[in-house]
Amino acid sequence: MADIETITSLAKRRGFAFQSSDIYGGLGSVWDYGPLGVELKNNIKRAWWRSVVYERDDMVGLDAGILMNRLVWKYSGHEATFSDPLVDCRKCKSRLRADKLEEGRCPNCGSPDLTEPRQFNLMFRTTVGAVEDESGLAYLRPETAQGIFANFKNVLDTTNRKLPFGVAQIGKAFRNEITPGNFIFRTREFEQMEIEFFVKPPHVLKPGEMSDEEWHERWVEDRFNWHLDLGMNPQHLRKYYQRPDELAHYAKGCVDLQYRFFPDREDEEKQWDELEGIANRTDFDLKAHSKKPVNDEGKRLNPDSTADLTYFDHESNQHVFPYVIEPSAGVDRKVLAFMMDAYREEEVRGEKRVVLKLHPELAPIKVAVLPLAKNKEGIVKLAKEIKTKLTRTGSLRAVYDDTAGIGKLYRRQDEVGTPVCVTVDHQSLEDNQVTIRDRDTMVQERVSIAELEKTIGQKLGLPVCV
Amino acid sequence: MADIETITSLAKRRGFAFQSSDIYGGLGSVWDYGPLGVELKNNIKRAWWRSVVYERDDMVGLDAGILMNRLVWKYSGHEATFSDPLVDCRKCKSRLRADKLEEGRCPNCGSPDLTEPRQFNLMFRTTVGAVEDESGLAYLRPETAQGIFANFKNVLDTTNRKLPFGVAQIGKAFRNEITPGNFIFRTREFEQMEIEFFVKPPHVLKPGEMSDEEWHERWVEDRFNWHLDLGMNPQHLRKYYQRPDELAHYAKGCVDLQYRFFPDREDEEKQWDELEGIANRTDFDLKAHSKKPVNDEGKRLNPDSTADLTYFDHESNQHVFPYVIEPSAGVDRKVLAFMMDAYREEEVRGEKRVVLKLHPELAPIKVAVLPLAKNKEGIVKLAKEIKTKLTRTGSLRAVYDDTAGIGKLYRRQDEVGTPVCVTVDHQSLEDNQVTIRDRDTMVQERVSIAELEKTIGQKLGLPVCV
Repeated sequence: MADIETITSLAKRRGFAFQSSDIYGGLGSVWDYGPLGVELKNNIKRAWWRSVVYERDDMVGLDAGILMNRLVWKYSGHEATFSDPLVDCRKCKSRLRADKLEEGRCPNCGSPDLTEPRQFNLMFRTTVGAVEDESGLAYLRPETAQGIFANFKNVLDTTNRKLPFGVAQIGKAFRNEITPGNFIFRTREFEQMEIEFFVKPPHVLKPGEMSDEEWHERWVEDRFNWHLDLGMNPQHLRKYYQRPDELAHYAKGCVDLQYRFFPDREDEEKQWDELEGIANRTDFDLKAHSKKPVNDEGKRLNPDSTADLTYFDHESNQHVFPYVIEPSAGVDRKVLAFMMDAYREEEVRGEKRVVLKLHPELAPIKVAVLPLAKNKEGIVKLAKEIKTKLTRTGSLRAVYDDTAGIGKLYRRQDEVGTPVCVTVDHQSLEDNQVTIRDRDTMVQERVSIAELEKTIGQKLGLPVCV
Repeated sequence: MADIETITSLAKRRGFAFQSSDIYGGLGSVWDYGPLGVELKNNIKRAWWRSVVYERDDMVGLDAGILMNRLVWKYSGHEATFSDPLVDCRKCKSRLRADKLEEGRCPNCGSPDLTEPRQFNLMFRTTVGAVEDESGLAYLRPETAQGIFANFKNVLDTTNRKLPFGVAQIGKAFRNEITPGNFIFRTREFEQMEIEFFVKPPHVLKPGEMSDEEWHERWVEDRFNWHLDLGMNPQHLRKYYQRPDELAHYAKGCVDLQYRFFPDREDEEKQWDELEGIANRTDFDLKAHSKKPVNDEGKRLNPDSTADLTYFDHESNQHVFPYVIEPSAGVDRKVLAFMMDAYREEEVRGEKRVVLKLHPELAPIKVAVLPLAKNKEGIVKLAKEIKTKLTRTGSLRAVYDDTAGIGKLYRRQDEVGTPVCVTVDHQSLEDNQVTIRDRDTMVQERVSIAELEKTIGQKLGLPVCV
């Protein structure tokens, strides 16, 4: 395991992530994913999608826009309440989070002369259309979730779904954080993977059916185990059950999956921070966006919505607002956690070896094909042929590299987590065999080229295509 | 082939795309992708990435942020020139594109009383950080390309690349269009797939090396053929060579791949519109973002950049600005074009059959597993097992559906392009065989369950995993 600083340094050195616009001095807390980072991030997203959409019968996907009608954010509550309290230092003009000021003094200049706190909304604003006034005001979504609620009826109408069922979505979200930081841990532009899983509300449950609370617990288990299946050390991941006083006002319960992001902090409790949150949001969101009267006096709480977001429950013969379980994760934090978790420094023959023991499904490159001599035409040609064959017919992400000696090439691949290296040498031209080297054990073995895809596939535990 | 209206209707009915925020009356020209649309879009992106990154040795990927430092857009030229001319109608207050006014009169009220044109910048603006003044001004990127130029040196430094090499990127971009429309053809929020392919500039070319112009032509061919490989009808796709007077001032040449998006228009020439553009941008962009003096008087054209974006050419022993070939495509237009192209209406036994003859690699669902009787426990169980097996070990995107009779289920799958249906019946429980039905021919055949993944994989021309 590594700390965030070590991963940040590796990320910059090897092309996992760069500070945005760094040729112009950067942009506060936005990061660009480089050639290896984009692959790792895509692999995480794909593994999640496969697990929560393809391998289940009760889920579908969605991809809503970043820009939405402003009324979505009015009725979700974000316009009124998605804010942090800010104070200004009258001496040095710093703007500070009031709730993070432990001393009551400006941390920059030490002055106690601070303004009263005022609320600062975290949504980025922009204007849509040619007229620059309030009528065109729009926000960059601060979460992807509302895109699912706004499309609840569309999904229901086009997929013939019955409760329980869920909708998964991956996409960018934006929060104008006052104090972002810690590499990709907290950034103003980030990517989310969110699920809204709709279940029967308690009052129409039949005997033997799972309740919202049981579904909540099931999702906590499923999401926790997903990380372990992808190789995460169970010592670094824990479930944190929010206390009633910590819960959002609409939530019936919330369990955070916390990762040990800050292993160097003295206070053990402060080493942990949120990797994913799984909340029971009850029927709060669908009710908020529905046109139907729902309060006790029969008054329309939402006079702007054109849609009835109830679900008709045939068994009880009534319209109900489903309850919803929301497993909500940040992609960037997953990238960081999996990298921290996979990082090892080992001593090999007196030298330091850095190795990223990523699960093969997450590794940016599955196989590196390396020629032992780059000036031997036959070897280079064979190595490139093998790379092409692994890529095309094997569906394995492979690269060819001849830009250094073999020892250095192995170390380079270790550092970025490539599980297998294939080395082509003079002998290969005669016996049609190559050497494959294991990232973790560094053991090398001779393998027939004809059997290569199958051998590597089995070794990695990935589907092998023929 | 279908027109845009037909596809729009199918898209809404079956869950390919919905108007954003339609429960609040929508948001001008933003579309959300539904359960089938997100799969189709992801498949197009994946097919592109495989083709331009994995299957080549001279390309890497990147994923830069949507928010960038404002100076990127100053030196790219967008701040000054990325605009449309607008006029206001003094009578009805409409705001109009001056260059689209054919009559010199307001198309809404017919008044000739229009203001002088003024330039309207198409970039969306927002403010980053807690202080709402010019210092925090940022734009939503109007193209992904600049993220590649800004990271040119980062990529070069971390990947040991030599010219020629390219960088591919997929991501959202935003343009505050005055007259968006035609479903997902022109939208304010859209997704791009862009490549910047860096090659040696003409003055250091050695005999036998490909010139920028030859690379340009090669990319035009490669990109054109990519569409045909994915089943597009060559009658609907053409290359349009821009005339010198149409070229952007920095471009040495540009070839548009045009699709027949508007087959109903009388003027044959107006039936075609841009699907992808492949430009030779010379060294314009890297020069614009580089700190090194480049003009004839040795004056720094860019006093803000901190980076030298030249490439050291070992062979000629000099620093050069690479030329760049840019194949730039919109994902949403690809979705639209592939859907239009695949659409067929056929008459089958006196009834209309709608079928989407999508290439198997693009089809949102590869296999639908359908039980012939949904109230027979054994049949349902076996069908679900087959769905799970195809998904997990076969790596085929499969779904289970029992919400209608078999005839209706077949039609539903035809309409969304599912190439193969697997039907489980009473007989299956005894002989371990199922019926597979071909989308295009509607021919049915009995197949052993043990051989199912292999048979389907071969039928679809997809890699079969074992």
